[in-house]
This record gives sequence, structure tokens and C-alpha cells, in this order.
Amino acid sequence: MSYQAPMKDMLFVMNELANLEGVSALPGCEDANAETAEAVLEENAKFVSGVIAPLNHAGDKEPSFWHDGKVTTSKGFKEAFKQFAEAGWQGLQHPTDFGGQGLPKLIGTPCVEMLHGANLSFALVALLSDGAIEALMTAGSDEQKATYLEPLVTGKWTGTMNLTEPQAGSDLAAVRSRAVPQGDGTYKVFGTKIFITYGEHDMAENIIHLVLARTPDAPPGVKGISLFIVPKFMVNADGSLGARNDAHCVSIEHKLGIKASPTAVLQFGDNGGAVGYLVGEENRGLEYMFIMMNAARFGVGMQGVGLAENAYQQAVAFAKDRVQSRDLNGSPAGVAIIHHPDVRRMLMSMRAQTEAARALAYVAAGIHDVAHHHADAEVRAHNQAVYEYLVPIVKGWSTEMSENVARDGVQVHGGMGFIEETGAAQHYRDAKILTIYEGTTAIQANDLIGRKTVRDGGALAKSLVAQVRATAGELAQVNSPEFAAIRKHLERGADDLEAVIDFVVNHVKSDIKCVFAGSVLYLKLAGIVLGGWQMGRAALVAQKKLAAGEGDAAFYHAKIVTARFFADHILSGSSGMRAAIVDGSAGVLGLEVEQF
Amino acid sequence: MSYQAPMKDMLFVMNELANLEGVSALPGCEDANAETAEAVLEENAKFVSGVIAPLNHAGDKEPSFWHDGKVTTSKGFKEAFKQFAEAGWQGLQHPTDFGGQGLPKLIGTPCVEMLHGANLSFALVALLSDGAIEALMTAGSDEQKATYLEPLVTGKWTGTMNLTEPQAGSDLAAVRSRAVPQGDGTYKVFGTKIFITYGEHDMAENIIHLVLARTPDAPPGVKGISLFIVPKFMVNADGSLGARNDAHCVSIEHKLGIKASPTAVLQFGDNGGAVGYLVGEENRGLEYMFIMMNAARFGVGMQGVGLAENAYQQAVAFAKDRVQSRDLNGSPAGVAIIHHPDVRRMLMSMRAQTEAARALAYVAAGIHDVAHHHADAEVRAHNQAVYEYLVPIVKGWSTEMSENVARDGVQVHGGMGFIEETGAAQHYRDAKILTIYEGTTAIQANDLIGRKTVRDGGALAKSLVAQVRATAGELAQVNSPEFAAIRKHLERGADDLEAVIDFVVNHVKSDIKCVFAGSVLYLKLAGIVLGGWQMGRAALVAQKKLAAGEGDAAFYHAKIVTARFFADHILSGSSGMRAAIVDGSAGVLGLEVEQF
Repeated sequence: MSYQAPMKDMLFVMNELANLEGVSALPGCEDANAETAEAVLEENAKFVSGVIAPLNHAGDKEPSFWHDGKVTTSKGFKEAFKQFAEAGWQGLQHPTDFGGQGLPKLIGTPCVEMLHGANLSFALVALLSDGAIEALMTAGSDEQKATYLEPLVTGKWTGTMNLTEPQAGSDLAAVRSRAVPQGDGTYKVFGTKIFITYGEHDMAENIIHLVLARTPDAPPGVKGISLFIVPKFMVNADGSLGARNDAHCVSIEHKLGIKASPTAVLQFGDNGGAVGYLVGEENRGLEYMFIMMNAARFGVGMQGVGLAENAYQQAVAFAKDRVQSRDLNGSPAGVAIIHHPDVRRMLMSMRAQTEAARALAYVAAGIHDVAHHHADAEVRAHNQAVYEYLVPIVKGWSTEMSENVARDGVQVHGGMGFIEETGAAQHYRDAKILTIYEGTTAIQANDLIGRKTVRDGGALAKSLVAQVRATAGELAQVNSPEFAAIRKHLERGADDLEAVIDFVVNHVKSDIKCVFAGSVLYLKLAGIVLGGWQMGRAALVAQKKLAAGEGDAAFYHAKIVTARFFADHILSGSSGMRAAIVDGSAGVLGLEVEQF
Repeated sequence: MSYQAPMKDMLFVMNELANLEGVSALPGCEDANAETAEAVLEENAKFVSGVIAPLNHAGDKEPSFWHDGKVTTSKGFKEAFKQFAEAGWQGLQHPTDFGGQGLPKLIGTPCVEMLHGANLSFALVALLSDGAIEALMTAGSDEQKATYLEPLVTGKWTGTMNLTEPQAGSDLAAVRSRAVPQGDGTYKVFGTKIFITYGEHDMAENIIHLVLARTPDAPPGVKGISLFIVPKFMVNADGSLGARNDAHCVSIEHKLGIKASPTAVLQFGDNGGAVGYLVGEENRGLEYMFIMMNAARFGVGMQGVGLAENAYQQAVAFAKDRVQSRDLNGSPAGVAIIHHPDVRRMLMSMRAQTEAARALAYVAAGIHDVAHHHADAEVRAHNQAVYEYLVPIVKGWSTEMSENVARDGVQVHGGMGFIEETGAAQHYRDAKILTIYEGTTAIQANDLIGRKTVRDGGALAKSLVAQVRATAGELAQVNSPEFAAIRKHLERGADDLEAVIDFVVNHVKSDIKCVFAGSVLYLKLAGIVLGGWQMGRAALVAQKKLAAGEGDAAFYHAKIVTARFFADHILSGSSGMRAAIVDGSAGVLGLEVEQF
């Protein structure tokens, strides 16, 4: 069975949890009503499951390959990207001025989830172009926008992010690539960049590299980094392509997963210097790159949700089909393994975590739209702060959970899961990059603590905890064992999260290492509590619909059961995580390096 | 850096926790004193890190391959197995009567751990031979023993286990292979077996397949399965090899991991029937196969420990070497990433879980030796029962934790971990088989509940909880924050485990699915509580040594810190697991199949 977009849950979350109605009432979002949203999602779902999903396993088996500086992508990728571009999917969330469709993030996000769910390797090319578009939109000159945006938005060209260098890894302060001004407004760029996703490929006419480098007099560290446009082919005044630039792919990596997506080593300036154009001002490159990264981080979070959904669907299909052993309650013959309780437990765990992460991400997307479109500047600013708090959680927690989900997906398949033919193993391999690229989970957690929690003394974080408690209060109004269980664990989760926020804020100055020893655990705790909060909200909506006799009763009933599973099995871990954060740093930090 | 046996911890656990002294006092184990043990381990460590470990990554890159019915194993495997056999390592735990060394399991176990730690794929051939030897030793006729044991024990030949068939998977009741008596005491065997580890290879002169099949009048289900010896080459009366038997390898699998070890599809009897010899009595095959499986299950548990140790060592080496970003406490330049708190947390988590699982397994091995060698039958029987309770935990928990450890190993490497060249990714791929073969974790958990917990009303399980509490009592005597933390979480863990045992015993008849919905969680809870118990015992020993000024102070100090980490970060999860087991079945079982 191939990936199918989970339309019902997507629309439920958009409409009932993420306030699509509110978003469509925002200035500039008037067209984005529920009908449009559903139509866009349906069209995208059809495209994605018809054209993109079938390339996923094939691309894993026959990855992109490098020969003599050129990268040939997996069979069908080039043609599929052409269709993707022509149908306008690259431009979904980008301004109509540059050939986009100008839809809000809340509608773009499920489309992004579908694309990643269907084929992570393929979707990466679009994700990177999105990032480049965001950065140029914010920091590019009018001329740069006029030159580069439309071809990127329409998928005629693609974009890349060039940060990492061999000696620097995630530490951008250590970037050494050089950019030498030529006196004519251009620069010559020299250096080696590694881990460049779609840094070279054959799917578009041109590739627009956005490259971090230092000008000759730049201060050391991150304050001396500038951002440059380095096109693969020079662009003439009329928009046609000119000479080949001195930016070359010297190899691609042999990776654990996402094998169809080429991960390039790029060499800039080996033959005299690659022509580069400064974006914005010198030494502000990191700031601009963060624009790309924040967009990309949210996108990687959606990769986690999409991949988890795909792994779940595949495991469900296998578990319904595979007959093995009798039912525990007694059956004359073997039953489909979905009847075995531990298989059921794994499927529910996959389902519950995927739904919770989806809900939290879409809610964040809706908040992003308010932050960008609301008429009131204060409302915008507040929503922007909430969105920025949620981004590292959407990125970090969704991807961490996707690893577990992919793992359970293999496990449901038993021995067959270990055979590459089934495809379950591909999810397990592909998932492993998600907690690493665009900043590891630890880097997300540093961001969550440093920029998002400590700066305002935990005020924003605690305002979210207060909202979680309000939902718990609503849950207490419903008299049923399901709602009692959800309420109990959500309330405890809120207590645990608040205690951890206090711990972080109170100790970060006196003992910074002690706080950061629990950074990733704090991020995960925030993920399960805020994800659990969305599941609680979802259960309340479902209960109201059931009481009113509206809609699909089986769907709403399943939502309540799934929310309960999440509470009993996932949220119930909050107290252990709190203990590990608040008391656990001595164990983390107690050894000398020599004792390892 | 290549794998090095963790000699210091191995010897500590053997001597201080697993009662090597007591084992060496048992009848027949007199030679197995501390000096012998250390000498054997040192010799084995030298062999394993010198000869076997270097083949691990190479074998992954150039797996075994099939051509025209023959399997060529990865480069160097054949020669290494010859050395392994000639040095007598295959026979370490097997009787001297058949060419073995007759050492107790407590000494064999660390050697097994090393072998698996160095090279999972290689070690599998020995693990399977061990199982075949155990089965023949218990159920074979004198003539069969005389024919097959010495060549197996000395590594001249190897053995296999043939259980799985395409339509049956783990459900042995569905086995369809046929064995037709020929009137001369032999049988002709017909059928297809899949997932046969080292079912065909070029590393030994002959392969002794042990095959489950049904005789013509056998009753249906597991009570109609018999066990047959089907040699690849017939064996003449003088022990020389005769004609090729009708057992052929038709393909090997393309797998996620353990790629150097061939996983064969074997076809029996396509050319007239494969000659087979009944082992023991007809229809008792499952019972005999369980002898192999129990030995193999413990062995797979050691694969988990060994792989985790290797992944840990590699992550430590990388983290000490890789310089990136400044220290959180401020440093002029970048520091090795081992100084970053979250890297440290992952390393400690890898270390603590590995040490705890090692300790629990070695303790189980020591108990096995008492069960087999003690003069008093009652002591033997009691220890056998304890050992059998521990086997599914050693298998299930050690392998589940090894997946997490291998995952963290990749994560410590960051982007480099996703590149196959580093080798970290191989552990992540290899680990995934361990929770599946020789019975998935769910199958281990079924065994833990059905045969090991419920049959005596939880009495044996609770006697272990009482021992955990006694250790908690001893921990309370030491006045320090480390010991207070360990005691607190160990006591809570004991409470949680006891509550779960009661829940299992009290509900298994009235609502079996509700109990089995938490089966794997019960296994994992037992793993962390009993593993945490061993870490608590280890901390007590370390504290006494430090107080007495004996031995390696840095080692003992590290042991106490590691035990504390285990308590704060791993054991602290016990309450959430208890909640998920005791309250969580409604969420697991609440959906109809159609709602998935």
C-alpha cells in the first residue's frame, strides 16, 4: 500500500484546533476559507499519492549518483519535479507577486506534510527552495528579488543552504569560507561546504546557492559572517542563463537514509573564484540564515509528522493483512496480527504520537499566520513569540517521536521488517536524519532554553502552561473514564512542565551546565505536554460533536480513544522526565572526561 | 577506534555481582576461579579485537552474496572462523568429552559478549552452533552425539536452526514441512524454510541443519512437530563427508543490517527428499527446539549488550576527538563535544544502560551455573526457575535498550553519524534485528507472563522484588546524595514492579487482553528495576572498596555516578510505565479494527 494523505485528520485539526476560520478572517487571507483549504488539500493529496509516493522506495533502491561533477537523481525525480513545479506546488505559500499562490501557512503546512510523508528525499528539494525564497524575500535587494524569486517560486530553479564546513560542523563561528570584494559590487567566494542537500542535481535549470562566508575584514566568530548568492549558472540581465560559475560538486555522501536526495560536497572558487552577490549587509549573514533555518526547522518537524504517518499506514496495512497465531481470547485459526495486543499497542502509540505532533504543528502554523497578518501589531508580536517558542518543539519533538514511530513500524512487521523489500526499514533509516539536520535536537533545545524560555523569565512558556490547565479544567467537566484519565495526566504534565520551567529559569545563571544537562528532556517534556494538550482539546471537540450527533461518529470516538492512549502511555512519562531534569544533572556531569 | 573488550567492568561484575567465587566452588567448576577467568577473558579479548573486530565494518560494506546455490561470505570471515575454531573458542562452554573446554556460563558469557560486541554478523555463526550443540546434547542419541558433537564443538562444522516458514512466521503451529519415514530409520524431509541464519556459507566443511517438520500422522499444531538433523553433506560411518544432501539455498535476503551474515531461504527435498534423522522422539520437536532457543535467546541478549558497548565506545571516541563550539561555561576556543552537557547525557545513558544490562545478564549466567552444578537438587531447581524468569528479560530488555543506545550513538556523531563511513549507522541498522529474531520482544513478554509469572501466582517474581527491597535497605545505610537518589528510585521501582506483578496475576484470567496490552511494558519495567538493582548493588560494592581504600578509585567513583544516572534517568520512568500498564489497556484496545 502506498501513502495516502490523512485528509480527515488534517481537516479536523485545521478546522477544530488550529482556527482556520480565524485565519481566513485575517487581512490578506480572505480566500483561505474552509472550502478552499479542502480543495487545495484534495488536489495536493491526489498529486502526492499519484506522482510522488511511488518514487519513494524506488529512489531508496537506486539513489542519486555522482559522476564527473554531475549528479543524476533517482529515476522519475526530474519529471516529477517538473510536474510539481508546473502545478504550482512550490509556490503555495509564497507571494502572488512572484508567481506564488499566497496561501497562509496553515494551508501550506498539511501540503508540506503530505509531500514529506510521501517521499522525504523528493520533498527536500522543495524545502530548501522554500528556505532560500524566505531569506531572499526578507533580506534580498529589489534587483535580487526580481532576478531570483520568480524562478525559485515557480520551481524553474531550486535553492540551497550552504552553512556547514568540514572543520566547523554545527559551529558557525568556525566558518572559514572567504568572500573577496571585486570592486564592482560582486565578490569572489572560496571554500568547501559539506552536507549540502540538493547541492547538485539535474532536476532544474539552475541552482541558487546561498552561502555563508567571511569578507576580508570581518570580525571573528558569528558576527563576521555574510550571506552570498552564488548561482550555479550566472544569470544574464534578461533572466537567461550565462556562464557556469566556479561552484562545483566534488562528491556526494553515502548515507544511512534519504538516499535519493543528493548530499553534496561543494567546492567554491577552485578555478579563480565563484562569483557571489552579497545579500543584505555584510556581517549580518547569520541573521538572514536564521530566516531560512526557522522556516526549514518547522519544515523538518513536518517531515517527522509525515514520515510517522507513512510508517503508521504501512504498519496498519501489514498488521491487517498478516495472519499469524491465534487470538488470545481463543480462535480456531490464526488471526491478523492487528488482533494481538502488543501489535495494537504499537499501532496506537504510532498513531497517537503522530496525531499529537500534527495537531501541535498545525496550531503553530495558525499562530504564525496571525503573527504575520493580524491588523494589531501587539497581537502580531505576541503570536510571533508563541510561534517562535513552538518552532524548536515542533522540530525537535516531532522528529524524535518519528524515530520511535519508524522503529515501531519495523517491529510490527517482525522479521519482514528487517528485509529491505518491505519498505518499513527505509522509514527507520530515513528518520534518523531528522533529529540531526537543521540543528540537532540538542541545538533546538538550546534555542528553546536560551532564546525562548530564559529571556522573558519563563513568562511566555508559563502562559502556555496556563492554557493547558484551562483545557484540563474543561476536561474535568466531562464525566467519563476517558476524560478523567486525559485530565489527570494533562494536569500532572502541566505541573511537571511548570516545575521544569521554574528550574530552568532559576538555575540557568548559577549553574548553566546543570540546566543544559536536561535541555533535550525539557524539549521532549514540552512536546508531550503541549501535544497532549492538543489531544485533550481534540477529545473535547469530539465529545461535543458526538453529543450533538454531528459528523463521523467513528472518527470522533477514535479521537477520544487515541487521546486517552496518549495520556496513559505518553503523557504518563512526564514525572520521570521532570525527575531526570530537576535531579538528574549530577549523574550527567559527574564523571571526568578521563573516566569515559 | 576499534572495539576493545571492557575487561575492567566485566571482571568487576563477574567477581562482585555474579558470584564467580561461588560458581567456582560448585562441583565440576573447580577450575573456574578468578585467575582462570581473567586469563580466559584476556586471551579472548586479544583475539576478538585483533582478528574479529576489524572485519565488522568491512563485512557491512561487502556483504555475503549468493550465486548459483552457493554463498560466499564477506572477505576474511572464512579465515577468521578457522582461527576461532582452532583456538577452541567455539567449545568454551561445551563439555570436554566432545572437545570443549567445559567452562561455566559465567565465564563463557563475557566471551560471548565480546564476540558479539566486536562483530555481530560473525558471531552469529557461533551462536547458532551453540544452540545446535545444546539441543543435540540434550535430546540426541548416543550415536548422533558421537557423529555430530565433536565437529560442531571444535568448529569444523556449524549448526543452524530451521523453524520459520513463509506462511507461518513466528507461529510454529503453522509449520508445514513434512518428514516421511523411509522404513530404515531415516526420513525424507520436504519444505521451505526462511530466515535461516548462516543457512549456507563457505566457512566450514559441513552444515548441520536442525529442522522442524511434521511426520505423516502427526497431530496438528505445535504438538505434531518433530526435530530432524539434516546435514548439508551426508556423514559416513568414519566421520568423513559423503554425498550432498537435498537441502539447498535458493537465495539470501537483502537486509537492513547484519549484512555479512547470510540469511538463507532453504529448500528441502526438491530433488527427491533431504535425508533427515529424527532427534529424540516424534512430536517432541518443539520442546527440543526450545532448548536451542533458550540458549540462543540469552545469547541474543548478549548481542544487545555487546553491540551497545561497541556503540558506546565509538561515540566516546568521537566525542573526545571532535572539537566544536565553545564550552557553556566559557572557553576561548572550541572544545571537544564531550564537554557539551547533552552529549554527556547521551554518553551516560548509553553507558548506564549497557552496564546495567551486562550486570543483570552475568548474574543470570551465574544463577544458571548454580542451577546446573549445585549438589542440592532443590537449590538447582530454584535457581533454574530464577534463570528462566530472567531469560526473556535479558533477551528482551537488553536488545530494546541496545536500539536506544545505537540510536544515541548516531546522534552523538551528528551529521557524521548519518554517513555510513563512520560506522555508527551500522550499529543502528544491526541493532534492529535483535528485538525481532529468536522471538520478538512481545514473544519474550508472552513467555515472561505466561510461563514465568502467572504459573506460580507471581511468587518467584515477587521474591526478586523482595531482594530488590533488601538492596534498597542497604543503600539507605549510606549517607550521601548519590545513594539517597539510587535508593529512592529503586524503592519506587520495586513498588511499581510489584504492583504490576499483582495486576498481571490478578487479571490474566478475567481479562487476558488487558494484561497482554501491557506485556512488553512489564518486561521493560522488570528490566529497568532488576538492572537498577544490579547498579545499586554495584554502587554498594564500589562504596565499600572506596572506604577500604582498595582498588581503582576512579573506576569505583564512576560506578557510583553511573548508578545514580541510571536511577535518575532510567529508573525514574517506572511510575509512568506502571500507569501505562495498569490503566493503559483501554487506550490500547479501544478501537475497532476498521477504525485503523
